[in-house]
Amino acid sequence: MNTDSTNMNPGLDEADSPGAERRLIDLGLQLPTPPRPLGTYVEAVQSGSLLFLSGMLPTRDGSIAVTGRLGAELDVAQGREAARLAALNALAVVRAHLGSLDRVNRVIRVAVSVVTFGDVRDHPTVADGASDLFQDVFGREKNSCRSVYGVATLPLAAPLVLDVIFELAI
Amino acid sequence: MNTDSTNMNPGLDEADSPGAERRLIDLGLQLPTPPRPLGTYVEAVQSGSLLFLSGMLPTRDGSIAVTGRLGAELDVAQGREAARLAALNALAVVRAHLGSLDRVNRVIRVAVSVVTFGDVRDHPTVADGASDLFQDVFGREKNSCRSVYGVATLPLAAPLVLDVIFELAI
Amino acid sequence: MNTDSTNMNPGLDEADSPGAERRLIDLGLQLPTPPRPLGTYVEAVQSGSLLFLSGMLPTRDGSIAVTGRLGAELDVAQGREAARLAALNALAVVRAHLGSLDRVNRVIRVAVSVVTFGDVRDHPTVADGASDLFQDVFGREKNSCRSVYGVATLPLAAPLVLDVIFELAI
Repeated sequence: MNTDSTNMNPGLDEADSPGAERRLIDLGLQLPTPPRPLGTYVEAVQSGSLLFLSGMLPTRDGSIAVTGRLGAELDVAQGREAARLAALNALAVVRAHLGSLDRVNRVIRVAVSVVTFGDVRDHPTVADGASDLFQDVFGREKNSCRSVYGVATLPLAAPLVLDVIFELAI
Repeated sequence: MNTDSTNMNPGLDEADSPGAERRLIDLGLQLPTPPRPLGTYVEAVQSGSLLFLSGMLPTRDGSIAVTGRLGAELDVAQGREAARLAALNALAVVRAHLGSLDRVNRVIRVAVSVVTFGDVRDHPTVADGASDLFQDVFGREKNSCRSVYGVATLPLAAPLVLDVIFELAI
Repeated sequence: MNTDSTNMNPGLDEADSPGAERRLIDLGLQLPTPPRPLGTYVEAVQSGSLLFLSGMLPTRDGSIAVTGRLGAELDVAQGREAARLAALNALAVVRAHLGSLDRVNRVIRVAVSVVTFGDVRDHPTVADGASDLFQDVFGREKNSCRSVYGVATLPLAAPLVLDVIFELAI
């Protein structure tokens, strides 16, 4: 993995960094089948250089893979894993839409809405399950801004939903 | 209604499709008076080709028309109708801002935040009350990406709020 | 303060209005130290003329300054003050990122997610704590669109989080 050498060379020309598709291979990651819409919408819309994604749930092959609330049925580690799964779905949608993750110039914004029960404060650690994956795939210099929320309920009894805006190289 | 013929001709040049204003007439729809802000903000802001709308509530002539929580005071059908009402308000704001819905190039993103009580999972069906209307007015090829959330409370005891970003033809 | 004269001259050329940095001085406001990320993300990302900020909490010098829920531990006045504090943090992030608030062309969108308990309907008044500050600093003609939500929980037991998108002069 080339992340370390990138970190040691913060001034490294981006053109010399490995692309996201190469990093994915180095990380041993395979992307899942992209999720399908649950209603009258599409999974991604491009407008100019912006790519907006629909809310990504922790589904696997079209079925919800994790359910429950942080602070009740789910602990922080399980929440992190759910966020990572939703992020993998996001990458699958991007690749299906663009053909290659290498067309992503930047992750602009990540929002993570977590279903919580009681006095939960670990939203950022859960959200890092998604953000850490994006950092591994796109590189630290492309880290997004981020917001996290504790919500009441989500479709499919999902524990979280991930909203991402990407900037494309065009 | 021309939706059927469009569906039978997916390759049809968009220039040959009826515009949104024409579809509105064909659907027998009249837009309500646009809502007015509840505080220090405006209902729409354009930036480049993006048009951001304030959160649209199911109001009618300036008063909230539906209140309550999905899973308690409101069932799914009532939720759908509230979403449709909020979507009509969104169209009214767009027309007030742009002069005509025909200047909309695409619905980019729809977010629907529904106040829920208990173990509700029907958010997508409720949200389709808005998305189906947009599809009827703008055409299937302009469907947005979408996110839905179950939230705790909303202003005016509204059951949902609709956030929409449009792409303009400029 | 020049707000009054601006209001009396709605047709005033924007070039004649005082800039945001000047207004800040006239208002006697000093910006706090910008907040630091709580995880794998950055506080601001620019894409074209859009500047997206991470969720701003009512922190002061890196520690949460207000906690609790609107309708329980916090009343509306305390909520307003929390929103204002989060908005000051947003301005601090913008200045740290751009060098000067005068590079802001417009506040595009403000979203305020407030942790509520019980039958709360005062979200707009709370959110005005942020929107009124932005109006004072950037001028009424640059008011944003806005959405408010009542959520279940937030990181650091914060009572609200503020999401802002700015348009830059470029």
